[in-house]
Amino acid sequence: MQFTIQEIAKLVNGQVDGGTATVITGIAKIEDAGPGELSFISNPKYAKFLDTTQASAVLVNKDFPATQKTVIRTENAYVAFLTVLRTFYPDNDSLHPGIHPSAVIEEYSLIDDDCAIGPFVYIGKNCTIGGGTRIHPGVVIGENVTIGEDTILYPNVTIREHVTIGNNVIIHNGTVVGSDGFGFAREGDIYHKIPQVGTVVIEDNVEIGSNCSIDRATLGETRIKKGVKLDNLIQVAHNVVIGENTVIAAQSGISGSTKVGKAVVMGGQVGIAGHIDIGDNVTIGAQSGVSKGLRADQVYFGYPARPIMQAKREEAAMRRLPELIKRVAELERMIKEMKDGG
Amino acid sequence: MQFTIQEIAKLVNGQVDGGTATVITGIAKIEDAGPGELSFISNPKYAKFLDTTQASAVLVNKDFPATQKTVIRTENAYVAFLTVLRTFYPDNDSLHPGIHPSAVIEEYSLIDDDCAIGPFVYIGKNCTIGGGTRIHPGVVIGENVTIGEDTILYPNVTIREHVTIGNNVIIHNGTVVGSDGFGFAREGDIYHKIPQVGTVVIEDNVEIGSNCSIDRATLGETRIKKGVKLDNLIQVAHNVVIGENTVIAAQSGISGSTKVGKAVVMGGQVGIAGHIDIGDNVTIGAQSGVSKGLRADQVYFGYPARPIMQAKREEAAMRRLPELIKRVAELERMIKEMKDGG
Amino acid sequence: MQFTIQEIAKLVNGQVDGGTATVITGIAKIEDAGPGELSFISNPKYAKFLDTTQASAVLVNKDFPATQKTVIRTENAYVAFLTVLRTFYPDNDSLHPGIHPSAVIEEYSLIDDDCAIGPFVYIGKNCTIGGGTRIHPGVVIGENVTIGEDTILYPNVTIREHVTIGNNVIIHNGTVVGSDGFGFAREGDIYHKIPQVGTVVIEDNVEIGSNCSIDRATLGETRIKKGVKLDNLIQVAHNVVIGENTVIAAQSGISGSTKVGKAVVMGGQVGIAGHIDIGDNVTIGAQSGVSKGLRADQVYFGYPARPIMQAKREEAAMRRLPELIKRVAELERMIKEMKDGG
Repeated sequence: MQFTIQEIAKLVNGQVDGGTATVITGIAKIEDAGPGELSFISNPKYAKFLDTTQASAVLVNKDFPATQKTVIRTENAYVAFLTVLRTFYPDNDSLHPGIHPSAVIEEYSLIDDDCAIGPFVYIGKNCTIGGGTRIHPGVVIGENVTIGEDTILYPNVTIREHVTIGNNVIIHNGTVVGSDGFGFAREGDIYHKIPQVGTVVIEDNVEIGSNCSIDRATLGETRIKKGVKLDNLIQVAHNVVIGENTVIAAQSGISGSTKVGKAVVMGGQVGIAGHIDIGDNVTIGAQSGVSKGLRADQVYFGYPARPIMQAKREEAAMRRLPELIKRVAELERMIKEMKDGG
Repeated sequence: MQFTIQEIAKLVNGQVDGGTATVITGIAKIEDAGPGELSFISNPKYAKFLDTTQASAVLVNKDFPATQKTVIRTENAYVAFLTVLRTFYPDNDSLHPGIHPSAVIEEYSLIDDDCAIGPFVYIGKNCTIGGGTRIHPGVVIGENVTIGEDTILYPNVTIREHVTIGNNVIIHNGTVVGSDGFGFAREGDIYHKIPQVGTVVIEDNVEIGSNCSIDRATLGETRIKKGVKLDNLIQVAHNVVIGENTVIAAQSGISGSTKVGKAVVMGGQVGIAGHIDIGDNVTIGAQSGVSKGLRADQVYFGYPARPIMQAKREEAAMRRLPELIKRVAELERMIKEMKDGG
Repeated sequence: MQFTIQEIAKLVNGQVDGGTATVITGIAKIEDAGPGELSFISNPKYAKFLDTTQASAVLVNKDFPATQKTVIRTENAYVAFLTVLRTFYPDNDSLHPGIHPSAVIEEYSLIDDDCAIGPFVYIGKNCTIGGGTRIHPGVVIGENVTIGEDTILYPNVTIREHVTIGNNVIIHNGTVVGSDGFGFAREGDIYHKIPQVGTVVIEDNVEIGSNCSIDRATLGETRIKKGVKLDNLIQVAHNVVIGENTVIAAQSGISGSTKVGKAVVMGGQVGIAGHIDIGDNVTIGAQSGVSKGLRADQVYFGYPARPIMQAKREEAAMRRLPELIKRVAELERMIKEMKDGG
């Protein structure tokens, strides 16, 4: 596929500074791009590569400084880059509508004609699956599951019984939705299993990475709201609610019954205790340990998590502690001397 | 399904304070329950919901304070709640005894007639599987595996060759039992693989969450003893032994050859070094990092893990460190002044 | 299988101190070995077991102190132990060359005659798989995947489209290679998915544990170089490069675009930020959090990671902090007294 710079500018509603006739045949990162390739600079950190890049044109934000390179100025260079990316690399899923003969589908399940069901897929009874949805090889879906339209389940995903999944959801390989929550009643040293009879609801436009575990509720539901994006290897315990458009990086874990607000951003390997509330628009730094509720609109960091300015101040103080111990010993020596001398 | 309050009291061997004739049609959490529903209060933290709950009756412990709500007093409200839960939601596994025609079972394997083997299950040769055990779709079992009675393997579990699994074991989706331990012999910069020729033994009444990795031993065995409960995404390295009735929360990891005692409780994201002993009845707080053996019956916390009172004291001291640095500078100034003045 | 001590000494090019005729019928750890078994001591920590072991012979390093037990002295006791282990326990994979009739292989894929393809394996179109490679039950391979010779994919592994895997690679159960990187462009509160159109390259002699997630690049490639060994439940984000012979313990995670050098050693549960460089031969202690690049040949530890001597010094100082606060209060009291008294 190839386009002129002019054509790309039109595609992204941008303005060209420089030549418009050059033909673009591919897309690459700014530090890797060669002649004939288009790149982009969204993060100013990467502006330094503009002088040395071999790219034939670079997508930049409207207010990007003047330059001798050919640039295409747009409202949001990253979103423009996405548009071009989707044009150069259209979604070519190899799984086409239809049901592979090896798939096993139990009775009373309603599969839209426009669904694609791959080899070795198992679908339990009483399921409903919407049009445009693609179920890749090796996926197992329990009974009474509802899945919306244009959703993708990648190979070896498991959806357990009674789970509900919305439209335009993407779930990557090996992820499990609806395994039993971790609930036991202790009697002496013995733990009795508490039946986990609730469910999981995954709303529209959610994406979940690979090898995640999303547990079903004890009673009621675990809910992942619209537009949430989860990275890989994430733990979501029973009865957790994750608010709209929240983004969580890999290997983080959220304990039972915790409510996470809207538009929260969590780094990787964060741990959140159970039965607490995380406010809207909270940001939590990587590897933080959160044991108490967090107020909205703040940035937190550390183990235990605290407001980031406080965490940074304490961390800097920590650096000075070995020297401080020496200074205190010196003060003690001086005072002893003064007293003795006095 | 529905029962009167009287019938439920009888079921849990409890005493009713209030009306006994009301019909109960469901179960819900105390904060969610509506008319006609039964709830429970086990943790005193939830007692505050009693005034506002719409539940028609609430299971409480014997010594719960007097109240105008209808309550059913029992020895252990949580265990009573479990009993009722199992009555309202009997285990209705959709997988029935018999072998699905798509399953592949190699020669010399003995499968009890009362087993349920789902679609796309693979069972290697020389396996023995006891009565009442259910092997869900997509499970792969290597050769020479022994599985007891009434055990459940959920979809897409893998049990590798020569592993032994007891009775009444539950293993959730995506979990791997018996992958190779992480063992290499370094020669210069090259690592040679050490064949992992040991095995894994999972004893009776163990439950393992989804997407866990339980490695086989280098020599000998990795052993998970009776009644152990593991949450999701847990790492158990080669030659680890986990003692009876120990409970470990999600995303924790135990390094090679470590012995964990009985009735230990670990929070989530705990990391334990290799070749150490964790005593019986130890409690370890979430995200702790344990690099040395821990004595029995103590509570530990932190990175590195230390007795919790010490950890809390140091954490509180840490909060005061930035101010302490200022105080020491002030002392230095004062002493200089006194000396100069003197 | 059985050998005399003499035969074993010959096999490992070692020298016997003691009787050579005893027959060895098995191998065990030094603390477990019984009569007729061979053991080894490589780590001096285990030398204490020599007095009490029941082993009939023990492999030791050349310079091991004189002893009355029968020992076989070799250049490297651990490598010798490996050689014996492989002789006693030859690789007996139950999966033999040939394609199981239940496997589904799409058109234009080239599978070497010497490959073993197990039940319920799916292979997309345009794949190439080399001789001696074994694809275990339940593995799913997307289209345009290339896999070299003598590679093993264990049950329920997923290899996504366009991924390249070298020779002598081992990938354990449930691991996913090529799931989408975690890339979104934010526009207000909405996150737009950035198509992940790059790939993953796994070079020769790499071993990857179970339930790992290795993401494909946004553009370009994620690359795991020759001889790298990854433990279980590890996250490798998009565009990461891991240098030759690097070893990473379980549950560690590496964020996007980070370059890890050669012969790096990472403990378990380490987290590494994105877009940084980790130098060659770096060692990183377990549970460390690395937010900035690390210089080659150093040992780092802690959260945040810092040179280990500094981390240990600060940790020791931390232990003394509660007492230091008291000492500073005492100094303040004394100075006040001196001033008041003066």
